[in-house]
Amino acid sequence: MRILGIDPGYGIVGYGIVEKSGNKISYVSHGAITTDKDERFDERLERVYRGILDVIAHYQPELVAVENIYFYKNVKTAIYVGEARGVILLAARHSNLPVVEFTPHQVKLAITGYGRADKQQIQKVIKILLKLDEIPKPDDAADALAIAWCAAVQTTR
Amino acid sequence: MRILGIDPGYGIVGYGIVEKSGNKISYVSHGAITTDKDERFDERLERVYRGILDVIAHYQPELVAVENIYFYKNVKTAIYVGEARGVILLAARHSNLPVVEFTPHQVKLAITGYGRADKQQIQKVIKILLKLDEIPKPDDAADALAIAWCAAVQTTR
Repeated sequence: MRILGIDPGYGIVGYGIVEKSGNKISYVSHGAITTDKDERFDERLERVYRGILDVIAHYQPELVAVENIYFYKNVKTAIYVGEARGVILLAARHSNLPVVEFTPHQVKLAITGYGRADKQQIQKVIKILLKLDEIPKPDDAADALAIAWCAAVQTTR
Repeated sequence: MRILGIDPGYGIVGYGIVEKSGNKISYVSHGAITTDKDERFDERLERVYRGILDVIAHYQPELVAVENIYFYKNVKTAIYVGEARGVILLAARHSNLPVVEFTPHQVKLAITGYGRADKQQIQKVIKILLKLDEIPKPDDAADALAIAWCAAVQTTR
């Protein structure tokens, strides 16, 4: 089963793809959809929506896993990330794919067994687990791979 | 010029349509798109997206005005409303319509000249301004008419 993990955002949307066969989880790809802060907001949302549709069309995942955060520095950021999340969820639906959501705490627990591990620790561990030569860049893509890993561990297929 | 005002939300999305000809602003229609809290979140977002596309196709507005709120009881609500806003903005874009945004404060100022008017006062005034027999229901649709009015006042066409 192929899983697309997404770290939602407005300026950078990280994505990571892993493949689960039996109990083996292996790396497929990672990357990021970026939007320009000088662009109109609706243009940025369209880029995110279209970008996710393209990633899905290219890598043909069977499941989408999206991070679910409920604390932000301010409400404005929360609304913006929410807007990006909305079009990401819509892109998954328009691709007829099921979506699962995980909090950062769940992702940390799935990867290190320790809910309070920091971002750098998670990235180092995901590099080891997926047998990568380097920590994936940007950070958002590394986070997305961690989310995909979390979903892969939890699926029974 | 026909204007669609939208009061974004997750469970209820209010909409209101007004027509501006010269300096005259007149009522066209109002209503609400509702989603069921027992439905999956992606299904609810799809209903909001599809609902807005349908309203646009039916009433053929030339401009979309959306309310822009930056305070919520909690961040979870802000994210949810943000998700709904995201798919609303995408629906406007997919209909090739420009979007303008107003804060509740701007809407209040445009309607009563008083930025601290309460919700009930705004609804009573919008009823008078649009020559309606009753305050439009639900509240979200009345709010949406107020947003459309605000946009109508500000446009030069």
